[in-house]
Amino acid sequence: MTRIMKPYKLSSREFKAENTRISTGDVEIGGERLVVIAGPCAVESEDQLMQTAYGVKKAGASILRGGAFKPRTSPFSFQGLKKAGLELLKATSERCKIPVVTEIVDTQDVELFSEYVDIIQIGSRNMQNFSLLTAVGKSQRPVVLKRGFSCTVTEWLTAADYILAEGNPNVILCERGIRTFEDSTRFSLDLSSIPVVKKYSHLPIIVDPSHAAGHFSLVPSLAKGAIAAGADGLMIEVHPNPAEALVDGLQSLTLSDFSRLMTELVPIAQSVGRLV
Amino acid sequence: MTRIMKPYKLSSREFKAENTRISTGDVEIGGERLVVIAGPCAVESEDQLMQTAYGVKKAGASILRGGAFKPRTSPFSFQGLKKAGLELLKATSERCKIPVVTEIVDTQDVELFSEYVDIIQIGSRNMQNFSLLTAVGKSQRPVVLKRGFSCTVTEWLTAADYILAEGNPNVILCERGIRTFEDSTRFSLDLSSIPVVKKYSHLPIIVDPSHAAGHFSLVPSLAKGAIAAGADGLMIEVHPNPAEALVDGLQSLTLSDFSRLMTELVPIAQSVGRLV
Amino acid sequence: MTRIMKPYKLSSREFKAENTRISTGDVEIGGERLVVIAGPCAVESEDQLMQTAYGVKKAGASILRGGAFKPRTSPFSFQGLKKAGLELLKATSERCKIPVVTEIVDTQDVELFSEYVDIIQIGSRNMQNFSLLTAVGKSQRPVVLKRGFSCTVTEWLTAADYILAEGNPNVILCERGIRTFEDSTRFSLDLSSIPVVKKYSHLPIIVDPSHAAGHFSLVPSLAKGAIAAGADGLMIEVHPNPAEALVDGLQSLTLSDFSRLMTELVPIAQSVGRLV
Amino acid sequence: MTRIMKPYKLSSREFKAENTRISTGDVEIGGERLVVIAGPCAVESEDQLMQTAYGVKKAGASILRGGAFKPRTSPFSFQGLKKAGLELLKATSERCKIPVVTEIVDTQDVELFSEYVDIIQIGSRNMQNFSLLTAVGKSQRPVVLKRGFSCTVTEWLTAADYILAEGNPNVILCERGIRTFEDSTRFSLDLSSIPVVKKYSHLPIIVDPSHAAGHFSLVPSLAKGAIAAGADGLMIEVHPNPAEALVDGLQSLTLSDFSRLMTELVPIAQSVGRLV
Repeated sequence: MTRIMKPYKLSSREFKAENTRISTGDVEIGGERLVVIAGPCAVESEDQLMQTAYGVKKAGASILRGGAFKPRTSPFSFQGLKKAGLELLKATSERCKIPVVTEIVDTQDVELFSEYVDIIQIGSRNMQNFSLLTAVGKSQRPVVLKRGFSCTVTEWLTAADYILAEGNPNVILCERGIRTFEDSTRFSLDLSSIPVVKKYSHLPIIVDPSHAAGHFSLVPSLAKGAIAAGADGLMIEVHPNPAEALVDGLQSLTLSDFSRLMTELVPIAQSVGRLV
Repeated sequence: MTRIMKPYKLSSREFKAENTRISTGDVEIGGERLVVIAGPCAVESEDQLMQTAYGVKKAGASILRGGAFKPRTSPFSFQGLKKAGLELLKATSERCKIPVVTEIVDTQDVELFSEYVDIIQIGSRNMQNFSLLTAVGKSQRPVVLKRGFSCTVTEWLTAADYILAEGNPNVILCERGIRTFEDSTRFSLDLSSIPVVKKYSHLPIIVDPSHAAGHFSLVPSLAKGAIAAGADGLMIEVHPNPAEALVDGLQSLTLSDFSRLMTELVPIAQSVGRLV
Repeated sequence: MTRIMKPYKLSSREFKAENTRISTGDVEIGGERLVVIAGPCAVESEDQLMQTAYGVKKAGASILRGGAFKPRTSPFSFQGLKKAGLELLKATSERCKIPVVTEIVDTQDVELFSEYVDIIQIGSRNMQNFSLLTAVGKSQRPVVLKRGFSCTVTEWLTAADYILAEGNPNVILCERGIRTFEDSTRFSLDLSSIPVVKKYSHLPIIVDPSHAAGHFSLVPSLAKGAIAAGADGLMIEVHPNPAEALVDGLQSLTLSDFSRLMTELVPIAQSVGRLV
Repeated sequence: MTRIMKPYKLSSREFKAENTRISTGDVEIGGERLVVIAGPCAVESEDQLMQTAYGVKKAGASILRGGAFKPRTSPFSFQGLKKAGLELLKATSERCKIPVVTEIVDTQDVELFSEYVDIIQIGSRNMQNFSLLTAVGKSQRPVVLKRGFSCTVTEWLTAADYILAEGNPNVILCERGIRTFEDSTRFSLDLSSIPVVKKYSHLPIIVDPSHAAGHFSLVPSLAKGAIAAGADGLMIEVHPNPAEALVDGLQSLTLSDFSRLMTELVPIAQSVGRLV
């Protein structure tokens, strides 16, 4: 709070006082109603995706997530279905009437993604991949900009400036945990980033408790905390059969766990003047 | 979650399955009703303390906090009123009929503290001062054990074992933020520690959003998040006149800010099955 | 050291026992002779680059560094001379007979870089930009892979696997400091990564003390420590006139400071069985 | 380096420009000759201590270390021989004619320690135990002040002020690694703290590579790096039989490993104008 110089400009409240609201289809992000994005870490098959899409939509989610191009730590891990994954996302989106979001990993893919998905995600490891930020800034597709797991809020808002500077005003920030010494969780969810972002920026902020926690049993507690603290929504990993997930099964909720969580979120949202 | 060996024993759920509830006067910590501890960082004068005590009690706090022996980073900073501070705490406690908690910094003071205050606090910098843990373990006074700002949850529960091993079962854990690279807050509140502690330990856990945030404007958001995530209570810095506080004024709420926050916490507590 | 599973394969000593040595022109990296890479943070002009090249070569450096495409935190900061910078690097390299290294930031630029420079650098913020790793893996140009400032050594070696897996065996690791809570330096140089890499990997490792320290006055001490600890070389920022540098002037050595450091490094290198 | 306010005073170069030199018996710390402190983590028996003392002295160490009161994470771990350990240290010191250093953990023990040992150590977990700092400040015994594993250099020098303010000028700083996300070492040795301390403070600084690394195989590399970077000495764990050590055997050197390291340090020390 003693920061003297704020290097971000376009994402600041000084530049734009009122909250930014972003629309995709019928869904608005940053308004009174919270947005819940749910789905599997990786798109695996038509069956898996359709089952998840119907399930999470029924439970109250308004956007489907699923990875087609997976940025994996090792080159020998499953890298995603790639273009076939995008096609499955588009087909599912149309049949289930639910917008979809997926992660981009290459500057050359922006046009491709714009054809297939509603929202483009920049992953944590690419938050300071300035070429990629510039590339999605040239699109008008809404962008979920995940926080780099070792980047400050200041650096995050400055990264958002790269997208805004190219003419794309539709940036949704997503807190997903930062790297610390604590070893009982995969990352440490930085709850404080919610009020800090709300204070200094007009951009909406959602929270991904799944990657932060790294374990499904901790997700509901973090999700509730995030909503009570003022987040504009959540991004949650849900898999119809976590035990058989190709990626990150341990942190995925089942459909019934997700459904219970959605019910529990309703009164908390109301307590802070929001709707689910 | 991949931890193979849990070095803590007495604080674990394996050792004791049901939640520990701790009583002091009429107040129970770890039960259905949340406990809110409020007061100034440092005891400064009779006036300041009485005014705060009446104010926070009226707003719904059930325990008064205030530092008499202050562990300050520099020897040239105000070190607290020491014994005179303990006397003021006792007098205020009796007149306002509210239990008090204050921090101990020397093994030789346990008896003195037991005479004057209801709950003894071990500060973050002393979480692994094993002599001090052992000393308060020999008392029966409830102990608020603040998390070391760079200690893991595992180390925290193992530190609690030092107190429990001496025969004092009355340990209240207090999350107060951990040290990370993030520089827009003083520390990073580790929200995840709440569900992790609830999963592995029977001890109650409260949250201090004031030291974590370092700025009053962020406190309400963190306080709400902590309650929604399942904390058993809060410890909040409140000062009748933060601008003139001798210590940590920037992170203190005014009495009216605190009162508003208490009102806002009621529906959130209810959402998670708790009372304020 | 209790790591059970090592996810990296191709970069491991199990895969290849003897040290990898990499050649570019007359220079060998990973052999008995230490390699010192020196030059300005950003290529600014022909004059600046030529002056630096002559100066650092005379002082004993064997490779020239200089940024043409600059990954800057803010889109409103100087972004480098881009292709004109590459041209200056090539011209200088030919006139001064010194190989050059510069940072790549976009997958589409690999061919361009291969035409203009001897060694391609992947910067810290792109260490887990897997598309970029794959792209440079398809080239045969040596690659300096800087450590992500919040990535573990394990993740670093696994990132190297992405390059090796594409058929490019010429990976030079570069430790440049990690992000911690310490605020008297820009990053914390992780000296331990040198023996850890030497123990588990066959790849050469050099150290960049300039970015770690963030201040020229600390660079000589860190440079000496790195060589004594077993690093295969150094990458140091040198500018003919740091006070007027467009980027990172505060952490740049003058040519005479650099020359003095090179002299001081000679006996330390000999102490550990190396030549400068 | 952008720090505006330096809260430490007595430990600063502004307060005292020339380097502080501290004497104990024939040994001087902070002078031209490096000081090497070596010995087991814990005093276990007369045999173990005598064997180590003779061995490390013969190899060139000038001070013997050994823990009598052990601050252990768990109350169920071996806590040291306590007073019997102090007696063994004194007896060994007299027979081998080597000064001894051991860690204090309770404010009530200062007089006791002053009777038995030459140098008193404040451990990392007690660096901000201000009562203990004040207590040893009232003695005239030299104090090794280990850096708190999550404290900044600024906080460390301010902690030194507590000792200096009480009238004890004999403070030896000891860097022993800080807590970070890196998991291939126990802590991350912060090499930069050496030039930072040298720049801002007149106090001598030594380095403990054993606790930082957590594994004996990494110790020689870190020890060499520390000396080349300008440290005034080392504190190294040595055990005649690490496999049977009660505490921290994995990070202890054997006597022959230690002897080889001492030989290797000689030319490095000379390279930076020091003697071993």
